[in-house]
Amino acid sequence: MLAALCVLPRRAWAGAGDYLARAQSLVPMLTERGQPPVALVKPVADASRILRFRMEKVADAASLDERLLGKGDGFILDFEGHRTGTLSFDLVGEGQGVDAPVRLRLTFGEVPTDVAEPLRPYKGTLAEGWLPEEIITVDYLPQTVRLPHRYAFRYVKVEVFDTSNTFKVRFHNIKAVAISSAGAAPTPLNSGDAMLDRIDAVSVATLRDCMQTVFEDGPRRDRRLWVGDLRLQALTAYTTFGGHDLVKRCLYLFAAFPRADGLMQACVYEKPKPAQGGIAILDYAALWNVVLADYVAASGDLESARELWPVAVRQVEILSAMVKDGLFAPPKDAFLFIDWAQKLDRMAAAQGVLLYAFSRTLELAKRLDKDADVAQLPGLLVSMKAAIRAQLYDTKRGAFVSGPERQVSWASQAWLVIGGAPKNSAEAARALRTVMTDPAAVRPVTPYLYHYMVEAMLLAGMKREALALMKSYWGGMVEAGADTFWEVYEPGSPLTSPYGDIHINSYCHAWSCTPAWFLRTGRLKPAAATS
Amino acid sequence: MLAALCVLPRRAWAGAGDYLARAQSLVPMLTERGQPPVALVKPVADASRILRFRMEKVADAASLDERLLGKGDGFILDFEGHRTGTLSFDLVGEGQGVDAPVRLRLTFGEVPTDVAEPLRPYKGTLAEGWLPEEIITVDYLPQTVRLPHRYAFRYVKVEVFDTSNTFKVRFHNIKAVAISSAGAAPTPLNSGDAMLDRIDAVSVATLRDCMQTVFEDGPRRDRRLWVGDLRLQALTAYTTFGGHDLVKRCLYLFAAFPRADGLMQACVYEKPKPAQGGIAILDYAALWNVVLADYVAASGDLESARELWPVAVRQVEILSAMVKDGLFAPPKDAFLFIDWAQKLDRMAAAQGVLLYAFSRTLELAKRLDKDADVAQLPGLLVSMKAAIRAQLYDTKRGAFVSGPERQVSWASQAWLVIGGAPKNSAEAARALRTVMTDPAAVRPVTPYLYHYMVEAMLLAGMKREALALMKSYWGGMVEAGADTFWEVYEPGSPLTSPYGDIHINSYCHAWSCTPAWFLRTGRLKPAAATS
Repeated sequence: MLAALCVLPRRAWAGAGDYLARAQSLVPMLTERGQPPVALVKPVADASRILRFRMEKVADAASLDERLLGKGDGFILDFEGHRTGTLSFDLVGEGQGVDAPVRLRLTFGEVPTDVAEPLRPYKGTLAEGWLPEEIITVDYLPQTVRLPHRYAFRYVKVEVFDTSNTFKVRFHNIKAVAISSAGAAPTPLNSGDAMLDRIDAVSVATLRDCMQTVFEDGPRRDRRLWVGDLRLQALTAYTTFGGHDLVKRCLYLFAAFPRADGLMQACVYEKPKPAQGGIAILDYAALWNVVLADYVAASGDLESARELWPVAVRQVEILSAMVKDGLFAPPKDAFLFIDWAQKLDRMAAAQGVLLYAFSRTLELAKRLDKDADVAQLPGLLVSMKAAIRAQLYDTKRGAFVSGPERQVSWASQAWLVIGGAPKNSAEAARALRTVMTDPAAVRPVTPYLYHYMVEAMLLAGMKREALALMKSYWGGMVEAGADTFWEVYEPGSPLTSPYGDIHINSYCHAWSCTPAWFLRTGRLKPAAATS
Repeated sequence: MLAALCVLPRRAWAGAGDYLARAQSLVPMLTERGQPPVALVKPVADASRILRFRMEKVADAASLDERLLGKGDGFILDFEGHRTGTLSFDLVGEGQGVDAPVRLRLTFGEVPTDVAEPLRPYKGTLAEGWLPEEIITVDYLPQTVRLPHRYAFRYVKVEVFDTSNTFKVRFHNIKAVAISSAGAAPTPLNSGDAMLDRIDAVSVATLRDCMQTVFEDGPRRDRRLWVGDLRLQALTAYTTFGGHDLVKRCLYLFAAFPRADGLMQACVYEKPKPAQGGIAILDYAALWNVVLADYVAASGDLESARELWPVAVRQVEILSAMVKDGLFAPPKDAFLFIDWAQKLDRMAAAQGVLLYAFSRTLELAKRLDKDADVAQLPGLLVSMKAAIRAQLYDTKRGAFVSGPERQVSWASQAWLVIGGAPKNSAEAARALRTVMTDPAAVRPVTPYLYHYMVEAMLLAGMKREALALMKSYWGGMVEAGADTFWEVYEPGSPLTSPYGDIHINSYCHAWSCTPAWFLRTGRLKPAAATS
């Protein structure tokens, strides 16, 4: 399907092995911090809560030392915040004879639902192996136990299946072992607006818990490096934890595992050893170039940019070959992401992603004195904008449309604004306001697309509305009790799961961490400050 | 209750710390042997089998390499013999994307019942934590997995809970890792009698799988050092694997953890660090002296015997203080074991155990020139035998009786014969034959007591009948498919469990390993040889 590409020189991606070696030289140190729980809690059904439960304190965490537990006993710990890591404790047997192994079930909850409801029967489409549950057997007591896997949690439900007739158990020194490669936490925002401060803090916690040996999409599930997530994590990291070297590692990891034709893969596996993800998403491939451009802008590291430049060129080559008469026309079976919204027609949004990625690549080319490598881009950008004007802009509605049914969506407006398609900011603002007031417009499902909507609104000069959208959307999760921001949040139907079961949703998902970027770069400020 | 004991000098058991150091200097090396399975099998309900199932071969084990397994798939491995140890395998993911952890359930079966029937709902009285089941999550593939605990098994049922929509798994290099401290296996018996050869081989396998860093009672459950089990294991070890140092270690371990008054405890915990078992069983305390006497006879190690002698003296002191007018009259709440038979009156048998243990201690005293320490014993033995004659022998029935209801049991005859109570072997034989033909006599439940019955029959000159009993009892387990001998076997009700659920029974229990001792010491010989 991409016959034209066969003429390309091999050198562009023949250096994959070198890229991998560079990536592996940048594996960061993980630091561990032990943190005791703050309370024993119990979930109470509460229809007024978005996730249907509130947590009530049962006792101080210290009271656990006084509890002797046998068959059928249990408790729920609250660590008062989200952690990526594991759990450790000393398990002591007490009684006439500590004569048998102890079997425990531990359930790790990011949100109350995870520990309030049984996880089974599981109705989800994703692997059951992601359900955050562990059944362990402790052979000999006393024993210090450290759970063998990594989990994502604020709550831990511990159930004692059985001890024996002659002894019970007591837990001492129970603690979360928080694991992250993020460095020292940034100073609190102190914006003067408590909600914005909280949104910022939750953003920072989200990013921290996703910063491991790569930027993971979510520490509960997938735990994988994806281009789209990386782009937003990297942006936010530059203004919070830093992490430039981790971004660099991730750029090189992707560069090491292209598709056979050189197209960037959407994700890379890191363990047990780095390996290609086997999935190509065209908008993600385009965004890899944006990640590189952002990285150079943040770090000034031109040396790496030059090493990676052939990869960026290859993305332009492959993707621009899919543009026909100024319109992005990928093969029918190509995968575009943009957002999880099911009915979304993605073509117009993808056109916006390409416009933006090509523009950023062209800027980078200039900085690297490599304009000649992407000499087709200036003309291509002109023809793409012209085609948008001719075919994707509905003058009467004042909005961009997508696909044969001329679908109007938030995604199309956001990305075409970011790509620079509108004539001016007034036209951009009109398009954005149009979809925001049109109940029929296809809305985003993920914080990922909400981010780009807010970004587009800022480009269109809609600061107050952008702030209001951020406060209502991310603030909605805060009001629902979020300690970290979620993979999926639809204000109208908060119990939605793209995977058929909310118990498999990820409640710490890095593509939702960008409020800290908006706030800390000054793009968004408290109402008082923006007035 | 034992006021007389307060006058005893402290030196007798003040050396417990030294005993422990000596025990710990004798921790044996464990060797590991990897063994591939021989077949994939399935259980088939079969009312003609004692355990209600037969195993049918489904495929060669090598065919596992060809099977790709997903959600709900599974298999049962047959290792063609019992193993104490663990399981290891390489787990490989295959498919479009190996994108999730794999969750597996593994069930370890000593006998078909363990893997043919669900283990739950569990009805047993022992800790549920002993049920041989493990649910594991394998985070990243490919991965070499070695199960973290030790199991006892011939069969392993593997069930794949789930992979994901985009991959399945394959098992390679699956093997049992057999663990034991037993040295090279003894040469096969080659008695000319296939059943005896098999009984011997199963005995040897039983002992091997119980020889770990102590002589364990059973590798599936308890995994603990008990005096009664040790006595029979040590005897059998001397004629098979050797293991004199392991016996020595166990003697010292017991010596290190007496009850406060110096009475031997019935068991000792080895892990996480050596500790007292908290249970005193009077017949077991007496038998510790017998283990010591056997050890000296087998090893000639008089130095250790002298170090441990004060402990032996202390047992005589405590136990002889419980003999009133020649009859053993322990405190009402004292624990006597003898056998698991519920209705058994244990007094007469315990009298026999004491007679025997005191006699063996007296012999040892003479060898060590320590007669003076147990100067009370000769007179005590005379008075105990006289009391038996006067109160425990029913001349009319030709059998010994026990308790206020004058109960007749195999246990009483066996132990009083071993203790030397009968006038001569004819009287002994009569007593033994009387109970064997009396359906109302209380029969043994465990191989432990069957051993002493066979031993008593040999002392009474009943070689042919002893051989027949061994062949029918241990042979019955062989015919039921035993690869190792069981903790409990009642020919009339083979589905009996002293713990309320046969899935918690131990099918490799060392107190059943003595046929190898009977056969290899020449005490029992094939019919042709004995005629």
